[in-house]
Amino acid sequence: MHFKVRAATKEDCKEISRMIKELAVYEKMPDQVKISHEELERDGFCQNPFFECLVAEVPEENTSKDGFTVVGFALYFYTYSTWKGPTVFLEDLYVMPEFRGNGFGKGLLCKVAKVGKEKQCVRLQLSVLDWNTPSRDFYAAKGAQDLTDSEGWHFIRFDGQNLDNLANEAPKD
Amino acid sequence: MHFKVRAATKEDCKEISRMIKELAVYEKMPDQVKISHEELERDGFCQNPFFECLVAEVPEENTSKDGFTVVGFALYFYTYSTWKGPTVFLEDLYVMPEFRGNGFGKGLLCKVAKVGKEKQCVRLQLSVLDWNTPSRDFYAAKGAQDLTDSEGWHFIRFDGQNLDNLANEAPKD
Repeated sequence: MHFKVRAATKEDCKEISRMIKELAVYEKMPDQVKISHEELERDGFCQNPFFECLVAEVPEENTSKDGFTVVGFALYFYTYSTWKGPTVFLEDLYVMPEFRGNGFGKGLLCKVAKVGKEKQCVRLQLSVLDWNTPSRDFYAAKGAQDLTDSEGWHFIRFDGQNLDNLANEAPKD
Repeated sequence: MHFKVRAATKEDCKEISRMIKELAVYEKMPDQVKISHEELERDGFCQNPFFECLVAEVPEENTSKDGFTVVGFALYFYTYSTWKGPTVFLEDLYVMPEFRGNGFGKGLLCKVAKVGKEKQCVRLQLSVLDWNTPSRDFYAAKGAQDLTDSEGWHFIRFDGQNLDNLANEAPKD
């Protein structure tokens, strides 16, 4: 099936927002999405954007059953390893179910790798849920290492009141 | 013990580089550090820096046994959650062994939280090794969630030839 991977524009944010919610449903945490398309527009298309995004688009004759032409996305940003240097982090990779198995996910992933390499990134990192076997197998088949399994890295998060408490205890300047 | 937490300057990069190596030794991966202090200067103190850094500094009368006054650091950057928005990611938090137990780590962590809140971040995230019980207990005591344990998130990485292969397979524009 023909498709194009291109950089997202501000005008794509409604479609990206729709797919972020679809991905959260797949990840079994649909109530977690608090970000609106207006916030995506603000945070991703400003002077110093928090993220960059690619979309997968199909021609008009291949729209989804609901009439969508933007049917996948990859949202990423740049982080830094104090051991290796610049890193590209893939926050979300999603392809609508009816378009899976056509290389869209691979196309998006490879394009993120290419963009990252162009920015001198030496690593591409991401997180995946342990029960998400199709995605884990997909990444493993492409040569990725699972660092939680091999080195024992765990993800830690502060938010809400815990984060406020930390900030309030910060030493004075 | 008296200490100050302040924003790192380009002139601190030699000290930060020294401590990055000390931390890698503690993490049992000393051979992994490929970044030099010149690269830290380039990547952290340019037009669009990849990271920000705080250092913990003691007065001249309390130098380390080797004569150092910069005895801890916290290196962080901004990421993005498509569910919640801007996030501050703490890549490294380190205090020299002889200065531990004096609140330096807490001071650095809390200051990162404060800086993150000022940038509208709603989360502070980090990674920790499973055998690093002192750090895991420290974060848990401050209210952090371990998302690998509670939700099953795994860390995935592409690098080296695998990353090159992905980039080479990217769809043409």
